[in-house]
Amino acid sequence: MGELNRVAIVGGTHGNECIGVYLKKKFSQSPTLVQRPSFSTQVLLANPQAVAAGVRYIDRDLNRSFDHDRLQNESLANYEDLRAKSIDQMIGPSSDAPVDVILDIHSTTSNLGLTLIIDDEKLFTLRLASYLQHLNSAIKVYSTVHSGRSRDALRSLAKYGFCLEVGPVAQGVLDADLFQRTEILIHTILDYLEQYNCNSVMRLNHSLTFYRYLDTVDYPRDDQGDIQAMIHPQLQFKDYEALYPGDPMFLTFDGEVILYSGASVVYPVFINEAAYYEKRIAMCLTEKVCTTLER
Amino acid sequence: MGELNRVAIVGGTHGNECIGVYLKKKFSQSPTLVQRPSFSTQVLLANPQAVAAGVRYIDRDLNRSFDHDRLQNESLANYEDLRAKSIDQMIGPSSDAPVDVILDIHSTTSNLGLTLIIDDEKLFTLRLASYLQHLNSAIKVYSTVHSGRSRDALRSLAKYGFCLEVGPVAQGVLDADLFQRTEILIHTILDYLEQYNCNSVMRLNHSLTFYRYLDTVDYPRDDQGDIQAMIHPQLQFKDYEALYPGDPMFLTFDGEVILYSGASVVYPVFINEAAYYEKRIAMCLTEKVCTTLER
Repeated sequence: MGELNRVAIVGGTHGNECIGVYLKKKFSQSPTLVQRPSFSTQVLLANPQAVAAGVRYIDRDLNRSFDHDRLQNESLANYEDLRAKSIDQMIGPSSDAPVDVILDIHSTTSNLGLTLIIDDEKLFTLRLASYLQHLNSAIKVYSTVHSGRSRDALRSLAKYGFCLEVGPVAQGVLDADLFQRTEILIHTILDYLEQYNCNSVMRLNHSLTFYRYLDTVDYPRDDQGDIQAMIHPQLQFKDYEALYPGDPMFLTFDGEVILYSGASVVYPVFINEAAYYEKRIAMCLTEKVCTTLER
Repeated sequence: MGELNRVAIVGGTHGNECIGVYLKKKFSQSPTLVQRPSFSTQVLLANPQAVAAGVRYIDRDLNRSFDHDRLQNESLANYEDLRAKSIDQMIGPSSDAPVDVILDIHSTTSNLGLTLIIDDEKLFTLRLASYLQHLNSAIKVYSTVHSGRSRDALRSLAKYGFCLEVGPVAQGVLDADLFQRTEILIHTILDYLEQYNCNSVMRLNHSLTFYRYLDTVDYPRDDQGDIQAMIHPQLQFKDYEALYPGDPMFLTFDGEVILYSGASVVYPVFINEAAYYEKRIAMCLTEKVCTTLER
């Protein structure tokens, strides 16, 4: 065995993100698809009650329920807190079978295409991202290293946690094209991990373009917290495109345009994600990073 | 006053269809927008608890809860049944203020664009549809005269009930472009009703193309009722386009193509609507009708 012994592929962390739910089901029915010689792969349906109900979560967002204090706090006993503790005991770092890599499959109503979300910028992580981009230049890489997701997400249980975030697709909808492209991406990642274990990773130029989280922007709201404006039509579905100071950002219900008032060009992602209204996030702003990996 | 005395504009019949929810809110805050001299207009948030929870419904689909027997059955007392009875008492035919026209605003994850759903093919109804199409050729008209919707939908409470069905937009998402185009459509309908009351409707050629409901098609399922295939990528978002015998219809999770096996060309609508998975509807098939209105 190589350095990576156990990999977990996770679907249904959010119950209404169907691509992950059905990919998990496919891999459970045909486990050889995700097996590789040098490591073992398990597949996990993270939130079965939310999947059955067709909702994101039952009591609270499971993918914000894995920070260390929550997992240790025995007084937290709602469904997702219990489920987080259970998953931690199955595959977490103190379990009998800790996983080295987690691939957590998500989908979004935003136009993220095929996005690999990375929570750290370690050389291992960036090299994997670079490899994927080399094989498919359409793959986007989003670094949340400054957003805190490395502390509370399900994928934070592994040494190397990755989120596959694909869209746009409505909650509760299976999109066949995205389903197939996500499956191909998973196979490519598993092949890379196999090569890594065997010290046979292809030598590449190792250039990489990725987008690093800077901040979130909320919808304009009134004193009661009610939304006062929508994403401007010119910004809708324009994830990863440059937003310049003075560009249209929101549109009020009366047709008034609200401009982006920042000083520097940014690259918004998760524009108009359905599940983020309640989190008071209209979009996340990122900076674009172009780098060449050393060593 | 003319023949039409009261009009109701309804939003939030399904709590996660945001365009109707926010148009209702806008019209409540600025009621003069929807007033016309010859009739009174009221606006109604149909399912406030579902809106607050961000879900389609609490206990059952409100827009399938208006058939006469249900409304009369006092033993039915879940939230939507109670709400249906309450709305019937406010604006139904036996109320103190029965409405003549209902415009019920819905949205869909399918690519229906701006669709006017009509539940009857009376001359009044077809003339209104023809007028709207004359002003905006992108408007589609879908007749459910053979689907039973005239018996159980909220809009069935009025003599003339119309559903505005706009998409594609994910559940829980506000799309600014669709919001604005839906608002324009509502103003156009109100203007038409005003002209109708004043006997000043523009003389038109009265040609009309519409799509008449034929049947529903479910997803392929296994013995447990689990979905075995997805909408084929070539059919996704192709609402109102011709589907010929032998065209791809579904794609299994293993990549097998399932063909449309019908004998005649049809025009699918509501392709991959999120809320219809539980209703076992992958799409509705329609026939295309091109007609010229007499008289």
